[in-house]
Amino acid sequence: MRMVEEGVTFPQGFLAAGVEAHIKKKDVDLAVVYSEDPCQAAGVFTTNKVQASCVSYTRRAVEQGPVRALVVNSGNANACTGPQGVEDTIQMARLVAGELGIEPHEVLVASTGVIGVNLPMDRIAGGIKKACSQLSKDGGESASAAIMTTDTVPKQAGAELTIGDCAVRIGAMAKGSGMIHPNMATMLAFMATDCAVDKEALDRLFREVVSRTFNQVSLDGDTSTNAMALLMANGMAGNHPLTAADPEFPVFARALEYAASQLAKAIARDGEGASKLLEVKVEGASSDEAARTIARSIARSNLVKAAVFGEDANWGRILCAAGYAGIPFRPEGVNIYLGDLQVCEHGAALPFDEAVALEVLRQPEVLIRVTMSEGRGEGVAWGCDLTYDYVKINASYRT
Amino acid sequence: MRMVEEGVTFPQGFLAAGVEAHIKKKDVDLAVVYSEDPCQAAGVFTTNKVQASCVSYTRRAVEQGPVRALVVNSGNANACTGPQGVEDTIQMARLVAGELGIEPHEVLVASTGVIGVNLPMDRIAGGIKKACSQLSKDGGESASAAIMTTDTVPKQAGAELTIGDCAVRIGAMAKGSGMIHPNMATMLAFMATDCAVDKEALDRLFREVVSRTFNQVSLDGDTSTNAMALLMANGMAGNHPLTAADPEFPVFARALEYAASQLAKAIARDGEGASKLLEVKVEGASSDEAARTIARSIARSNLVKAAVFGEDANWGRILCAAGYAGIPFRPEGVNIYLGDLQVCEHGAALPFDEAVALEVLRQPEVLIRVTMSEGRGEGVAWGCDLTYDYVKINASYRT
Repeated sequence: MRMVEEGVTFPQGFLAAGVEAHIKKKDVDLAVVYSEDPCQAAGVFTTNKVQASCVSYTRRAVEQGPVRALVVNSGNANACTGPQGVEDTIQMARLVAGELGIEPHEVLVASTGVIGVNLPMDRIAGGIKKACSQLSKDGGESASAAIMTTDTVPKQAGAELTIGDCAVRIGAMAKGSGMIHPNMATMLAFMATDCAVDKEALDRLFREVVSRTFNQVSLDGDTSTNAMALLMANGMAGNHPLTAADPEFPVFARALEYAASQLAKAIARDGEGASKLLEVKVEGASSDEAARTIARSIARSNLVKAAVFGEDANWGRILCAAGYAGIPFRPEGVNIYLGDLQVCEHGAALPFDEAVALEVLRQPEVLIRVTMSEGRGEGVAWGCDLTYDYVKINASYRT
Repeated sequence: MRMVEEGVTFPQGFLAAGVEAHIKKKDVDLAVVYSEDPCQAAGVFTTNKVQASCVSYTRRAVEQGPVRALVVNSGNANACTGPQGVEDTIQMARLVAGELGIEPHEVLVASTGVIGVNLPMDRIAGGIKKACSQLSKDGGESASAAIMTTDTVPKQAGAELTIGDCAVRIGAMAKGSGMIHPNMATMLAFMATDCAVDKEALDRLFREVVSRTFNQVSLDGDTSTNAMALLMANGMAGNHPLTAADPEFPVFARALEYAASQLAKAIARDGEGASKLLEVKVEGASSDEAARTIARSIARSNLVKAAVFGEDANWGRILCAAGYAGIPFRPEGVNIYLGDLQVCEHGAALPFDEAVALEVLRQPEVLIRVTMSEGRGEGVAWGCDLTYDYVKINASYRT
């Protein structure tokens, strides 16, 4: 397996474009991704009880499958927009289908941006027309830029591997950056592959991958109305279709997870106002899920995040945040490390060199490792520090 | 019922003192409260899996009852301090018992402050001796000051009412202010009354009151290792002991809840770096518990808190935070009000006067009201805004 810095057009048969539809004040803000062959699709969607209409629309399209295209706009989430919002989502799919000569139910739709404002459908229509006419193998980068909201950098990740005798490719893009600016809907991740995979195996695998990667990113703890992660697999690599029992399935699974984790880390690193990436590893929990839950609780804690910003080796906050994750464990079995430096043993203080701790905390990536004595469960979560800029960015937007 | 600004020594038979034990660098930091007659006690304790030894000790003393005294130190939480920490908690109870001629199991113990450092027991012992020698009816105020950590003001609340022909009094003190400074253990609340109340009725009532008041305060979302709320009832008012079936029980219940809610609001108002008190009312939820959970989710949202700081009428964030509380509801049945100004109708945007919204958000107390169409459940939560000062206070402490 080889990791590459490529996006959604890296796998065979995928074309894309990102264009200026003038939904935002400036910059590209509408992306279309198109696959020459029909795709098996898998999706994981926000659990928020308030969901934008694109969430239910796209969930249905994924379930029905196969799909051919994806349209995403930034700048307006089309959430809390009533019956008109539902109509506008359907219209986006219709417009793309019309341009590409496919069916509306083959088009996945995602939106991100301000809540509570109806989409400017004339500009959306113009953008869709333009994007569909510009689809190309080089369009992955502009597509990844067009889905950004308060993200400061586009986020792409890819991988190349061999299944049987076939070269198989994975390419992906994502946007994140807290719930941010106005009421930007947090996280969107779009993964594409030319691997042929059995639909049921793809579904299950994608759920697992998302639970270990995108769901482990905690920026400000708020869960958006629009978040979704989608995977499209068009099978154009020509490999024998993988089932979960196939001996080569784990190779594909690892590559997919690796690409997803690269994006998850990129999202955390680019959290609103963030100056540091925070990686929290929990080992020895009662299960992998327990470990992931505890890791998220630590990565989400305002007190831990503020201490990382202040480069303060405050392990008490880490143990405390582990304690309120809702997962039982024995505190006396807990050790805590900052990087390689142990700062807590058996749940109690351990004398440590403050200068070494400061050196660890000064790095742009800070690793917190927590070991427990409950079992063999492992999990990682990513977050960022809590900074003055976070408050500044979020204190006002609409004005 | 009459509300008064009095503390724990307001009810008959309660004496208190707050002294300088030199656990903190300055100020009073050790309090003792004593009741001339034995007390029925009730307690609600932190649900964090990492608990200071005083939590299990005091829980047992409350269960066993009756109790006579309470000792609290600030500046050191005696949490994550191993077997020595357990021994020190017991020793605190023994020292108080020795001074007052009572039994150690009649002494409730609470600590708040830095995590992971053993108590300076020589200074604790000196402080206990001094406090026990200074117990008086005037000592409530110094006791309320001695339990403070990063609180900027002491917090007391009291009430006077009549049960039968007897004047009954309630007096209380609390400390809050985020998890703050170092790893200060959040919330401690101590309520005293001279009302005679049946033990079982007292237990159940106190649990209900805490669930509607102290548990509805969300400062930074972190739940401490040391939080507890205690109620001591010595029966010295001479009323017939109240049972839950007594027609006058609701009068006492209302007074107790009112005093507790005054303290809960005072804690929220004094959150770390807070410039505004945030009150979130949810009406029309499927149950009171559902309403309280949704209200907490809104009051806890970093995005809502930052918007209140920025005086930005960002109702989308409010609806979004309601949506991820984990409670099902129909978004199209939701209306949102800032003060009296409606800003969202049927889950969608409603044109409103920005100047009026700004006027509401400029006040030191901001009321967010959310109405739903699920049932008759109601609940209130309190929080504060997220400010630059919050980050500043929490970015470094140990250094």
